[in-house]
Amino acid sequence: MSHTYEYPRPALTVDCVVFGMDEGDLKVLLIQRGVEPFVGKWALPGGFVRMEESLEDAARRELAEEAGIRPSHLEQLYTFGEPSRDPRGRVVTVAYFALVKLSDHNVVHAATDAREAAWFSVWDTPKLAFDHSDVLATALQRLKGKVRYQPIGFELLPPKFTLTQLQRLYEVILERELDKRNFRKKILSMDLLEELDEVEQDVSHRAARLYRFDHKKYKQLEKAGFNFEL
Amino acid sequence: MSHTYEYPRPALTVDCVVFGMDEGDLKVLLIQRGVEPFVGKWALPGGFVRMEESLEDAARRELAEEAGIRPSHLEQLYTFGEPSRDPRGRVVTVAYFALVKLSDHNVVHAATDAREAAWFSVWDTPKLAFDHSDVLATALQRLKGKVRYQPIGFELLPPKFTLTQLQRLYEVILERELDKRNFRKKILSMDLLEELDEVEQDVSHRAARLYRFDHKKYKQLEKAGFNFEL
Repeated sequence: MSHTYEYPRPALTVDCVVFGMDEGDLKVLLIQRGVEPFVGKWALPGGFVRMEESLEDAARRELAEEAGIRPSHLEQLYTFGEPSRDPRGRVVTVAYFALVKLSDHNVVHAATDAREAAWFSVWDTPKLAFDHSDVLATALQRLKGKVRYQPIGFELLPPKFTLTQLQRLYEVILERELDKRNFRKKILSMDLLEELDEVEQDVSHRAARLYRFDHKKYKQLEKAGFNFEL
Repeated sequence: MSHTYEYPRPALTVDCVVFGMDEGDLKVLLIQRGVEPFVGKWALPGGFVRMEESLEDAARRELAEEAGIRPSHLEQLYTFGEPSRDPRGRVVTVAYFALVKLSDHNVVHAATDAREAAWFSVWDTPKLAFDHSDVLATALQRLKGKVRYQPIGFELLPPKFTLTQLQRLYEVILERELDKRNFRKKILSMDLLEELDEVEQDVSHRAARLYRFDHKKYKQLEKAGFNFEL
């Protein structure tokens, strides 16, 4: 075993950027640290990787422990390893990111090392512990990139949604307004959406048509990728 | 310091996938291991991360030590952490990938833990140690993806090249033939190339026009990304 033990080892953690979509706003899940360092400060949920678990399992365990959240899909984002990023010493963290329906996770329960868990607008978070602001910024970049070459929204929107909700999701992620007619023309041309015989309920304005994703086509495009110029 | 020391730590390594373009073939740099485990087997260059160095610095140090290679650009690829991936125990590896001009690195010099260093066609490598075949496959996927939304070739082609050489690069990466007229139309429409007043030298066939990348435009497109349907 000598080769793996010759060297002092950095500590290894995972951290998770969980995005949720709320009426027209993109939210990120944060926890308030209950332990040093940065006790009382807000941070991304995460913690140390155990010897017997995979990196993704560690990320899922920490999300469940610290915020009671179990996302269907987790994706590895980037590994942050600047020697000075943690005051405790050398700690390398593998960051994951996930998209969830906020409606399924409106109430998040803090536990273990987390004092509180809550959703914050990605554009208005408190100062984050460690280099977690960089991790969040990297996740937002990834999300902006995905929009251009993969379908998005399945994990973020309710099962049935209006085209306005879908456009709003794109606008929030891309941080700019999109032309309504142009957006609809492009999104509908992809055969990604199923038009339903239903309209929104309980709205003051004229009820809009509801759509849902064609799951098979969605998965196809996720795999094959596409070019979506907006 | 307790929080970082409560847990046994996985060992942390870096591994590098270095691609080089050789007359019409995509090559990957491999080293023959001089130490256990997998002594004598071929693997990606890499090694343990030191406590005081960043992950990228570790990757650069290992590349220089094991193969005498100093790529201008290194990019983090993915972190592999399956508990069973290394027979020595729990070892998590952060993989990097780099593109280099084979002409600058034709002769690679093995050193330290590497017995030999050599270039292999990516389509015809020996059986690799650890999970390095998965790492290589992941790097090839990343390269295929990049071709679609970023300019490519600056690090792989000689400073002056023909459109045929550039098309061949795309064909090798995409693993399919491209229509010559269509490819030229698209690539020239991007204003990415500077046509030179020179033609190839010492060729039996009719000497073709030489081009070079417009570095400024190349960097712009690298940053902004584009949609290149081929």
